[in-house]
Amino acid sequence: MPSHYERLRNLIGTYSDIDRAGQVLDWDQQTYMPPGGAIERAEQVSTLNRLAHEHLVSDEMGEAIEAALHETANADRDTDEHRVVRHMSRFYTKRRRIPAEWIGEWTRITSLAQNAWEKARPASDFAAFLPHLEKIIDYRRQYSEFFAPYDHVYDPQLDYFEPGMKTAEVRAVFAELRPAQVELVQAIADRGRPVDDAPLHQAFDIQKQWDFGVDVVTQFGYDFTRGRQDRSAHPFTTFFGLGDVRITTRFLGDYIGSGLFSTMHESGHAMYGQGVSPSLARTENIHGASYAFHESQSRMWENLVGRSRPFWKAFYPKLQKTFFAQLGSVDLETFYRAINKVERSLIRVEADEATYNLHIMLRFELELDLMEKRLEARDLPEAWNRKVKDYLGLTPKNDREGVLQDIHWSAGYVGYFPTYSLGNLISVQLWEQIRKDLPDLERQIEGARFADLLAWLREKIHRHGAKYEPVELLRRITGQGLQAAPYLEYLRTKYGEIYGL
Amino acid sequence: MPSHYERLRNLIGTYSDIDRAGQVLDWDQQTYMPPGGAIERAEQVSTLNRLAHEHLVSDEMGEAIEAALHETANADRDTDEHRVVRHMSRFYTKRRRIPAEWIGEWTRITSLAQNAWEKARPASDFAAFLPHLEKIIDYRRQYSEFFAPYDHVYDPQLDYFEPGMKTAEVRAVFAELRPAQVELVQAIADRGRPVDDAPLHQAFDIQKQWDFGVDVVTQFGYDFTRGRQDRSAHPFTTFFGLGDVRITTRFLGDYIGSGLFSTMHESGHAMYGQGVSPSLARTENIHGASYAFHESQSRMWENLVGRSRPFWKAFYPKLQKTFFAQLGSVDLETFYRAINKVERSLIRVEADEATYNLHIMLRFELELDLMEKRLEARDLPEAWNRKVKDYLGLTPKNDREGVLQDIHWSAGYVGYFPTYSLGNLISVQLWEQIRKDLPDLERQIEGARFADLLAWLREKIHRHGAKYEPVELLRRITGQGLQAAPYLEYLRTKYGEIYGL
Repeated sequence: MPSHYERLRNLIGTYSDIDRAGQVLDWDQQTYMPPGGAIERAEQVSTLNRLAHEHLVSDEMGEAIEAALHETANADRDTDEHRVVRHMSRFYTKRRRIPAEWIGEWTRITSLAQNAWEKARPASDFAAFLPHLEKIIDYRRQYSEFFAPYDHVYDPQLDYFEPGMKTAEVRAVFAELRPAQVELVQAIADRGRPVDDAPLHQAFDIQKQWDFGVDVVTQFGYDFTRGRQDRSAHPFTTFFGLGDVRITTRFLGDYIGSGLFSTMHESGHAMYGQGVSPSLARTENIHGASYAFHESQSRMWENLVGRSRPFWKAFYPKLQKTFFAQLGSVDLETFYRAINKVERSLIRVEADEATYNLHIMLRFELELDLMEKRLEARDLPEAWNRKVKDYLGLTPKNDREGVLQDIHWSAGYVGYFPTYSLGNLISVQLWEQIRKDLPDLERQIEGARFADLLAWLREKIHRHGAKYEPVELLRRITGQGLQAAPYLEYLRTKYGEIYGL
Repeated sequence: MPSHYERLRNLIGTYSDIDRAGQVLDWDQQTYMPPGGAIERAEQVSTLNRLAHEHLVSDEMGEAIEAALHETANADRDTDEHRVVRHMSRFYTKRRRIPAEWIGEWTRITSLAQNAWEKARPASDFAAFLPHLEKIIDYRRQYSEFFAPYDHVYDPQLDYFEPGMKTAEVRAVFAELRPAQVELVQAIADRGRPVDDAPLHQAFDIQKQWDFGVDVVTQFGYDFTRGRQDRSAHPFTTFFGLGDVRITTRFLGDYIGSGLFSTMHESGHAMYGQGVSPSLARTENIHGASYAFHESQSRMWENLVGRSRPFWKAFYPKLQKTFFAQLGSVDLETFYRAINKVERSLIRVEADEATYNLHIMLRFELELDLMEKRLEARDLPEAWNRKVKDYLGLTPKNDREGVLQDIHWSAGYVGYFPTYSLGNLISVQLWEQIRKDLPDLERQIEGARFADLLAWLREKIHRHGAKYEPVELLRRITGQGLQAAPYLEYLRTKYGEIYGL
C-alpha cells in the first residue's frame, strides 16, 4: 500500500514529465528546429501546457496534497517529505486560483503581443505595440486580483518568480542601492580615467571561443555527461531532469566577451540544476529556490569568479595562447580592466556590473507605477526616458533603444526584472559567507581549483533545490535577510581599485 | 457551432500533439541527449505514451467518432472528412481492444527484453535472451486474441503495420518470390564473375560524405526548410509534423556505401512525409498508407534511383571530384557494378537487393511458426540456421550473426519484417507505372532532374497520407494488387545485365 506521500510523488512526477517534455520541445525550437516546424510546434507546446495545467489543478492532485499534508504533518521540517508536500501545496493553491479560461486568453494575448513586439522593436514603433501592452497590464492587474487580499498589488507578480518575497522588501533594498550606485557610476565618470576595451573587440575564431568556454566550464565543474552545450540566438539553461541540464551560448565573431561570459553565466545556472539532490527528481523542487537564487549562481560564476583577477591569473595565459595574434601583446591587467569597463549605456543586456542594477530598478519602478495605476501604458516611453536620464544621464534616441528593448513585457513577465538585481545582491551575500568558510578561496581560484567552491554551493544551496523559499534559504546560510550593503561594498572595492577612486 | 467532424479533429489534434511530442523526445534521445538523461527521459516518454493512449481510447473520443461517422456518412468517399473519420475509427477500435493493464505490462516486458538483447547479442548468448523472447511471443499471441476471430493468428500482427493486409496474401507473393530469388542468387554465384567493391572500401572524409549526401537529397527535393539531418547510431526518419520531417544518417569513415545510401533511403521516407496534404495536419493520416508503402518510397530513392546507372551518369563525376584520390581512376561502370554487388551474406542490414528478400522471408516464416505454435522460441536458433542454409547456402558461426542479429523481436515487433519486402515489391510496381506516365524518366534522371518524379509521387501517393489503406492505394495507382512478378523481372533484368546471365 503506497503512502499518501508516494501517491502524491507519482502525481507530481506525471506533471513534471509533461512539463519537462515541453521544455525539450522548447529547447529544440530554439536550437535545431527548421523554420517549417513553427506552426505545429506551437500547437504541441500549447497542448502539453494545457495537459500539464489540467493535471496540476485536478481534484485528484488536491486530494493527494491534502492527504499528504496530513500524513507528513509531524515529519521533520527539513525532510524532503515535509518540504515537497508543502511546496507543491503552495504551487497548487496558486495555480488553482487562476481560471482556466483566463489562462487560455492570456496565452493568446501574450502570443500576439510577442509577435507584435518582434515587429515593433526594429521599427521603433511603440504605438503598434501599445494596444498589446495595455492588454497585458490589464491582465496582470486581473492576475493580482486572483490573489487578493494582498499587501501590495505587485506582490502576486513578484511571488510568481520569488516565492514569499514582498514588494516592500525589494523597495527597501533598492532604495538603499539606487543613490549609492548612481553616485558610484558618476564618480567613475568624473574620475576621467576611461578603460579601453578595444582588445576585446577584435576578430576571434568562433570554434576556438567555443573550445575555450567548454574548457572553462568543465573546470568549474559543469558535467557534460549530464548536460551539453548548443548555440541559440539567446543563451539559456534548460532542465530536462537532474541528469540532463543543458546550456546554450551565443558567440560573436568580433567580440569575445559575449560568448565567454554567457557560457560561464549559463554554467552557473546549470551546475545549480545538476547539484539538486536525486531524491527530488521528478518534483517541482528541481528548479531551485527562486529566479533570484538561480541568478545568484549564474552571476557568481560569471562575475565574482569569471570577471575576477584571480580567475584570469589562472586562465589568461591560456587565452593568450589561444588568441595570440589578438591578445599576445595585451597584458593581464589591461585585459582585466577591459572586461570590467564601466560605461553608462542604454541597453540592459550590455550593461556592466556597476550600472546593471540601475537598468533593473527603473523597470521595477515603472512596473510598480503601472500596477498601481499611477502610470498608463501610453505614457511609458516618456516615463522611461525620464528615468534613464535620472539614473544614467542618457537619452534614448528612439524607443527601440528605450522602452521597447526587452522581450519581458511582451511575454507577459511582470515581476521578473527585479530578480536579476536580487540575484546580484544574493550572489555577494553568499560570497561573503563563502570567503569566511573557505579562507583560501582566492588562492584556489588562482590555481584553477573550483572543487571546494562547488562543493560548498552544492552542500549549502544546490542539493536543496526548492526545498526552502529564497529568503529562508539565505537566512539559513548567512544568518541575514536580503541586504544591499554587501553588494555596494563589493562594487566600491572592485571599481574603486580599477578606476582609482 | 463546430461540426462533429471539427470536434473530432480537435481531439485527434490533441492526440497527435502528444504523440509527436513523444517523437521529439525520442529523436533527441537518439541524437543529442547526454547519457545522464536516460532514466528521466524514459519516464517522460512513458508518461506521454500513457497520456496519448488514455486520450485515444477515451469515451469522449469514441463518442466524437460515432457522431462524426454519422455526420459524414454521405460525404464523398475521397474527401478528407470521410477518410479521416474512418481511419480514426479503425485506429480507435483496434487500440480500444487492448486492455490498459496489458499495455503497461507489455511496455515493461519489451523494455527489459531490449536491455537483455543489447547484452545477449554481443555475447552471442541466446539462452540469456530466451526467457524474454518466450514472454514476448506469449504476449504477441495474447495480442492476436484481442482481435479474434481472425482468419490467421498472424493477421493482427501484420495489420498493426499494414492495415488491411492478410497473412494469406503475403504468403502467396512470398511463395512466388522465394524460389525465383533463390535461383537468381544461385545463378549469379554459379556464373563465376564476381564484382569487386574494393573501391567503396577506402578512407572517405565524413564531412565530404555528409555534404555530398545533402546535395543529392536536396536535388531529389527533400526540403531542408521543413526538415534537417543529424547523425545517430541507426538512421531513421521522424515526423514532428508536416513542416518538420527530419532524417538521421550514419557515416563510416572506411566505406562510402553506408552513409550514401542511407541518406537517400531516409530522404525517401521524409519526402513522403513532407508531401502529405496540409489539410491532414495534426491527424493520424500524416503517417502514410503503411509501413510497406513508406518503405516503397525509401527503397525507390535508394535503389531504383540511387543504385541506377542513369543516376550515377549524373552524379558520378561530382563524386569523383569530391573523392579524387579514391575514385579518380575508378570508371563509372566499375563503380556502378560495385554498388550493385550481389553476395550471399548473413546480416540482413548489409544485404544487397537480390538477396534482401530472402532474409525477410525466413524471418516471416519463423514468425508464422512461432505464432501458430509450430515452433517454440527455444528451437529458434536451429530453425533459423536451417533456413539460412536453405536460402543462402550459409551457416552462421554463432547466434550473434544469426538469430540475435535484429532488434525487432526484442522490441516486440512481430509482423514488421514482411513490410520491408512488401516495400520492395510495391516500389517496383509503382516504378512500372511511373515509367509509363513519364516515358522520359531515365533521361530526366541522367540530367539530375527529379521534379517530375517527385510531383508524380506527391500527386499519386504522398498527398493522400493514410487516406487509403495500402492495397487500395496500390490498386488506385496501378490497377493491380500486390504482385511479385514485376520485382522479379526488375531483379532479373538488372542483375542479368551486371552479371552477364
